[in-house]
Formats: sequence, structure tokens, C-alpha cells
Amino acid sequence: RERTRALLAHRHFQRFIIGLIVLNAATLGMETFPPLVERYGTLLTVVDHLALYIFAAELIAKIYVERATFVRDPWNIFDTIIVGIAFASTTGSLSVLRALRILRVLRLLSVVPSLRRVVSALLRAMPGMSSIVVLLSLVLYVAAVMATKLYGQTAPDRFGDLPTSLFTLYQTMTGDDWGNIAREVMSRHPTAWIFFTIFILVCTFVVLNLFLAVVVSAMDE
Amino acid sequence: RERTRALLAHRHFQRFIIGLIVLNAATLGMETFPPLVERYGTLLTVVDHLALYIFAAELIAKIYVERATFVRDPWNIFDTIIVGIAFASTTGSLSVLRALRILRVLRLLSVVPSLRRVVSALLRAMPGMSSIVVLLSLVLYVAAVMATKLYGQTAPDRFGDLPTSLFTLYQTMTGDDWGNIAREVMSRHPTAWIFFTIFILVCTFVVLNLFLAVVVSAMDE
Amino acid sequence: RERTRALLAHRHFQRFIIGLIVLNAATLGMETFPPLVERYGTLLTVVDHLALYIFAAELIAKIYVERATFVRDPWNIFDTIIVGIAFASTTGSLSVLRALRILRVLRLLSVVPSLRRVVSALLRAMPGMSSIVVLLSLVLYVAAVMATKLYGQTAPDRFGDLPTSLFTLYQTMTGDDWGNIAREVMSRHPTAWIFFTIFILVCTFVVLNLFLAVVVSAMDE
Amino acid sequence: RERTRALLAHRHFQRFIIGLIVLNAATLGMETFPPLVERYGTLLTVVDHLALYIFAAELIAKIYVERATFVRDPWNIFDTIIVGIAFASTTGSLSVLRALRILRVLRLLSVVPSLRRVVSALLRAMPGMSSIVVLLSLVLYVAAVMATKLYGQTAPDRFGDLPTSLFTLYQTMTGDDWGNIAREVMSRHPTAWIFFTIFILVCTFVVLNLFLAVVVSAMDE
Ligand code: NA
Ligand code: NA
Repeated sequence: RERTRALLAHRHFQRFIIGLIVLNAATLGMETFPPLVERYGTLLTVVDHLALYIFAAELIAKIYVERATFVRDPWNIFDTIIVGIAFASTTGSLSVLRALRILRVLRLLSVVPSLRRVVSALLRAMPGMSSIVVLLSLVLYVAAVMATKLYGQTAPDRFGDLPTSLFTLYQTMTGDDWGNIAREVMSRHPTAWIFFTIFILVCTFVVLNLFLAVVVSAMDE
Repeated sequence: RERTRALLAHRHFQRFIIGLIVLNAATLGMETFPPLVERYGTLLTVVDHLALYIFAAELIAKIYVERATFVRDPWNIFDTIIVGIAFASTTGSLSVLRALRILRVLRLLSVVPSLRRVVSALLRAMPGMSSIVVLLSLVLYVAAVMATKLYGQTAPDRFGDLPTSLFTLYQTMTGDDWGNIAREVMSRHPTAWIFFTIFILVCTFVVLNLFLAVVVSAMDE
Repeated sequence: RERTRALLAHRHFQRFIIGLIVLNAATLGMETFPPLVERYGTLLTVVDHLALYIFAAELIAKIYVERATFVRDPWNIFDTIIVGIAFASTTGSLSVLRALRILRVLRLLSVVPSLRRVVSALLRAMPGMSSIVVLLSLVLYVAAVMATKLYGQTAPDRFGDLPTSLFTLYQTMTGDDWGNIAREVMSRHPTAWIFFTIFILVCTFVVLNLFLAVVVSAMDE
Repeated sequence: RERTRALLAHRHFQRFIIGLIVLNAATLGMETFPPLVERYGTLLTVVDHLALYIFAAELIAKIYVERATFVRDPWNIFDTIIVGIAFASTTGSLSVLRALRILRVLRLLSVVPSLRRVVSALLRAMPGMSSIVVLLSLVLYVAAVMATKLYGQTAPDRFGDLPTSLFTLYQTMTGDDWGNIAREVMSRHPTAWIFFTIFILVCTFVVLNLFLAVVVSAMDE
């Protein structure tokens, strides 16, 4: 067991795993080019399966080494989920599932130390912004219900039902093409500019403060 | 009176109110789907009215408990306005008024402590940025009057009158599709790029400093 | 002279001037509505001329009071320029000149103390960002010359000559509709994505640091 | 040798070089106007060649003065590359190469002290953000492979192959026109909004933190 632990922690082994993930990322990218698939299809599949089995073996070795403490490290849970999705997506026949195969490249996040640090920092910043994200979702939901009621019948492709309105207002929130959407609605409801202007002002103001909250909490550390 | 106070402040009661608001938000959302309204219409209306009466009862109980001090807490004023709008929108027959019914979901802002804190923080940040907002409005107004005079006759759908110009320049300020608007105007007024470039530079510069003012004032605290 | 000084500095006089500017702003806005001009045209012109003469009188009184020290305060220079433009735009017959009449509303910047402070702060932030603005202009110029040479003949409406390229790349820099511009060019020059990607990355990076420089220099104070 | 060193470091000489670069920038800009080329073509070429030879002479003088220490200053390497490109682009006949001639204007970055400081500061900020740039590239790559597999056949002009997907998602990341792209895909894949919403949320979140990392590391100094 100590030997396995030493192997897993060895610099060369870790570099080998990183190299394998990068190679696997490349083969998964190549698979999107039909001519490459035609010529090197078998090779790409072999590399792909080989990588998957090595990732699984590494995971099993880690469980063997760490035993009960394995589940305490969230990164181990992350790796298990990634490998699980990888197996499901290889055996699955659904095109959506097969598209998820590339997700295994995200194992880089847990293997490369600097990426691991960055992701940890990102996750630590999350609780500080959760209240504002809830507030923003609330604003989005309220605005979407209002817009569906007000403009649903005259602009059905933008505000026809609640999901459509949510999408359109999410787009508006990012500032993308909102002027044309608003003009479209205003041709039937001349006062719609009030709705859009208030919505954008509120969103900008909340996002500004979301940003601010993150900066200030980062300063405190 | 002490008993009512204790009830209102009780953890379970507050959770019940939060649950009721969330349920009401859901039923108001469901009302935007015609098939759901057809099947469960009566149930949705019942929940809606029930929620409204409970909110009103809670408010009356609060007035009874707090008496003169009731009006000192701005959140109480906020709740009163929300419930007032809720009653007006239920009895009203105008579609605009009926669309305002969803606004009662905003009561979450005063009931959920973490949202309450966030909104308070947002409001406290407002005075620090008021001067810059006035400055930005002034820039927008001056630019809109100029644009209406200069381009009103050749690009009437963009700058035909003052409100249209204000809308177009507000859109330009958010950076949405301004290139196409400017090109449209420039096909008739080749020097219009001067107007647009200066306007965008001034707005960017003022917004940058608006942001800065907020960050710096937040640091000071 | 002391009396004139006292009058100019008096709270009521300053409020009168602010009120006059706001009134003048309103009449200048009303002039963009043809029906209002038809009905109240003479009144609007009278208010406009009256305001102008009062601003001029105030300026002359200020020169009389402050004498040599008048030119030391940059705000006095600003007021003089604004009133100068106001006179030129009233007598002038060019439509461009007449559109500049609204600029006199900017006198609010020197009269309202809080706006005066904000603008002073904005101007003080300028030297700290001048180097980065020069850098950004340099990047823009170099990219525009390159784009004109490379894509000028195949996409003449976007990169036909240097001014057109400068405009298109300024638009690209603000992120407006750049995807469609790039796709248009890429239909003829498949490698144009390299140009656009590098240009946007460099601009984003420089703007990020421009922002940073402003924040850091504000912190230092 | 001391004399050459003194000449190179002399204030007047440096100003002469800066003036020459600005003049050369102007002539290279003029070359994009056919009428100017027709009339002053020979003059423009003469200035261009003269500038190039003076830059080369200056570089050789610098090598003669600094000898072995020349290669230690990265700005010297930068100048050498710029002059090298300048010579390659003058003799080359490829239009792409000729378009690179304007790059020599970037010598301003090493000659003007304030620009030199700004660029140095920008470069020093780079290591602090490298991890987040790698993370963003990883997210972009994973999303592009997924999108190519999922939407490649139904929206070939947006996600037809991996490079096209990378371009489209890079555009989406900058928020440009993503609503229309998503709608286009959603007309065939109604669940595509999940992909786009998650992609934009993840990118916004990572960019927010990229920005944060830069601010915080700048504060530490
Ligand atoms: Na945009
Ligand atoms: Na757009």
C-alpha cells in the first residue's frame, strides 16, 4: 500500500497522467474531423479506451490507498464523477451522452496543482455572491412573468411563454441585441421602453454590486 | 399583543410566510401556461387569493403590534406598498395592473434576512453614486437634444424626436448595436462618427469612474 | 465691487442660476417638438435669449469682481467657452452650430457643487490613464493600417480606407457585432480569425489594465 | 565607443528617433490612400526606406556599444525582432508580409519611457493571470468539442467543425450576438439553451475571478 501511495504521488506518474489527459483531449478533438476519423479511427478509439482504463485504474488505486479518507477530499469525488461520466458516455449510444466524453478532460483541474488552486479560489468566492445571485434570479423571474403577461400575445417568439421570456430577458441582461428586441415590442406597446429601461438599470446596478461584493470580500482575506 | 408579536417573530411563522411567497410565485408562473390554467385554474386562483389575504392579515397584525413605530421601519412601508399593489392588481381589470401581481413576490426581499442585508447594502451604495448618475443623465440629455436636431430628419426611426433619441442613445451607451446605428446615420452625415465616438468615450469614461467611486467608497467602510 | 461679489456668491443667486439653466434645458428640449414650437415658439425663444443674456451678464460681473484672478480658475475658462459657444450658436445659421446651443446646459457642471467635485475627480484621474490611452490608440492605428492593406479590397465597406478601418476596429474594440464583421471578412480570407482574435485579446488585456491602473491610483490617494 | 553611447542616450537623439517613428507611421498610413500614393508615392517610399535604414543603423550602433550585455535587455530583443520584420516585409512580395510593415511603429513602445513602463507593467501582470487563462481555454475547448458533436450537423455554419465552434464560442464568450446564435440552434435542438446558459455563466464567473485576481495581486504590491 505504501508503494502504491508513493507511485501515485510520484512526480513522473503525475506528469504521465497529465500527458495522457492532454493526449486524450487531442484525440477527442480529432474525432470531430471526419477525414481523420476515417484514416486513424481505430487508433483514436484505442487511445481513448486506453486512457479511460488508466484513469479508472488510477482511481481504484487511490481508493485502495486512501480507503475511508478517500471520500473526504472533494477532488476525489470530482474525479469519481468524471470517470463515471466517461464510462457512461463510452457505453451509451445517445449522441448527447457521447458528447459528454470530452468532459473527462476536466480531470486536468484536479491533477494540475495551479488549476486546482484557481478552481478552489473560485469556489471559495461563491458563498459571498450567493445572495446576490438569488436576488438576480428573483428579478429575472418577476420580470419574465410580467413580460409574458404583457407582451406574450403580441411578441410570441420573444415572450410567448415563461421559458422563452426567461431566455429573452437573460439575453437582455447580458446586453446582447436588447435594443432590437425592445424596438420590436415597442412597435406594439409604445410604453415598453419603461419595462426595458428599468429592467436593465436594476440588473446593471445589482451586477455592479455583485462585483463589488466579490472585490471587497477578496480584500478582507 | 405580546403574543401576536411572539407569533410574528417566530421562526416557524417566518418560514411559513417564505414558503407561501415561493408557492405564490410558482402559481403566478403557472398562470402563464394556458393548459395549466385550463386544468387547475380554480386551484391557482384559490392559492393566489389565500396568499394575498394571509399577507394582508400579517401586515395588519404587524401594525397592531408595532403601532406608531411601524412607519419608522422602511421595510414596513415597502411591505405595505407591495400588499397595496397586490390588492389593486387583483381587483383591477387592466392587463398592465394584472401583470403587476407578480410584484408581490418581491416581499421575499423583506422576509429573507440575507436578501434584506443585500438590498440594504445596495441602497446604502446609492448616495455615493448619485452625482455620477446625474452627470450621466445630463450627458444623455444633451446628446439626445443634439442628435434630434442633427439627425432627426434623416434618420427619423432612430432620432425622430427626443424620446426616440434618448432610447437610441441609452442603447448606444450600453454598447448594443451602436455600430449599425452609427453607420446608418453616417450614410447621410459622413461626420456623424465624431458624435458617436465622443459620446461613447465620454460615457465609458464616466461609467468607469462611477464604478471606481463605488469601489473606493466600499473600501473606506 | 464687494457688493457684486456678495451677490454672485449668494445662495439664492446661485439657486436662481441653476433654476435658469434647468429651465433653459427644458425649453431647448421642447424646441425639438414641432407642435410645441408652433404654439409656444415665441415664448421659447424669449426664455432662451433671456437665459443667454443673464449668463453673459453673470460672466461679466464675475470678470469685474475677480479681475486678473479670473483666468486662474479653469472653471471660469470653461464658463467663458460655454457662453461663447452659446452666442456663436444663437447667431449662427448653420444647423450644426444651432445644435450646439444645448451645450450651455453643461454650465450645470460648474454651478452645482457636487457635479463640480465629480468632474474634478474625473479630470484628476486622466493623467494616470493617459499612457494606456496612447497605447490603445497605437494598437488601434497599427491594426487599422494592417486591416486596410489586407482586407480593404475584399471588404471595402468595412476596411475600404483608413478612417473606415479605424471606425470598424473601434466598434470591434467595444465588442459590438464583431462576430459578423469577422465572419464577413473570413468568407474571403479564411485566416482573418487570427487578426480578429489577437486584436480583441490585446484590447481586452490593455483595457483590463487601464481599469486596474485607475483603481490602484485611486487607492493610493 | 563612449561617444556612440553618449549619442544614443542623448535627449535630442531619442527625440529624433521618436519623431522619425511618428513620421514613418504617418507615411505608412498615407500609403493606404491611393490618390496620395499616386502623387507622393516616391516621397513616401523614400521616407519609408530612410527610416528603416536609420532604425537599423541605430540598432547596430547599440550592439556595438553594449556588446554582450545587449541580449540581456528584453527591449533590445524586441527592437531587433521589429527591425527584422521591417526588413522582411519591405523585401517580401506577399501582401500579408507587406501589411506587417506597420508593425515597426511598435518601436514606440521601447523608445517612449512612459509607454515602456506601461508595457512592462502589463507583462508583469501576466503570470498572475496565466492559470485563469489556461482554465478559460480549457472551458472553451471542452465546450467547442461538445458543440461540434451536438450541433455540428444541424448548424454547420456555426458549429460545423472544431475551429468554427471555437470561433463561435469565443464570440459567445464576448457576449456578441449570442442570443441569435442560440436561437438558431434552439430551433432544431430545443434544449440548447442549457448548453448556452451554462457556458455563459461559467465564462462570466471565471472572467470575473480573472479580473479579481489581477486587482488583488496589484494591491499586494
Ligand atoms: Na453586444
Ligand atoms: Na449585437
